[in-house]
Amino acid sequence: MNPEPFLQLDRVIHEKGRLAILSLLAATPELSFTEMRETLGMTDGNLTTHIRILQEAGYISITKSYKNNRPLTTCSLTTAGRKAFAEYINLLEQIVLQTKNLK
Amino acid sequence: MNPEPFLQLDRVIHEKGRLAILSLLAATPELSFTEMRETLGMTDGNLTTHIRILQEAGYISITKSYKNNRPLTTCSLTTAGRKAFAEYINLLEQIVLQTKNLK
Repeated sequence: MNPEPFLQLDRVIHEKGRLAILSLLAATPELSFTEMRETLGMTDGNLTTHIRILQEAGYISITKSYKNNRPLTTCSLTTAGRKAFAEYINLLEQIVLQTKNLK
Repeated sequence: MNPEPFLQLDRVIHEKGRLAILSLLAATPELSFTEMRETLGMTDGNLTTHIRILQEAGYISITKSYKNNRPLTTCSLTTAGRKAFAEYINLLEQIVLQTKNLK
């Protein structure tokens, strides 16, 4: 077994909540906080924490605006986030292939 | 995006050190503590902690014996561990496929 793909897994992305958030954002230009919370079934606190960590890593950008006089927070993947996520998924694929070949 | 595969990821297996350990054990009937530590480049303390968590989950069994008058600790995957690991890898595969389909 080659341990490299495991060692290279980005810890920021590997946490399963953040992996779900990035997968969601990779599929669309932007999403509101509310849409993400409902799709993922997360609490406000959990989603807020994960979003902060992803923003600090430079993987997502956050826009605060107003819609119908109500505050609206939207998130989108940055270029760096898209690149890091693609690399992470490539590593997962190597891990899956390496493991399936054992059978 | 279907969030189910993310939600179902087993936290015991998802930690990247433990994922590497299980992948290693899935490829062989048993491995000594020393072989695992050297292949994975882990510290004694790290490997010991991960092994304890995997044992408590019922995913690996540990055998202590002697070889050339020196204590020898070996680990192997249990039937439950093999099943849980196969399910986890299937979920990873779904995540990879789901994400690749976005491109």
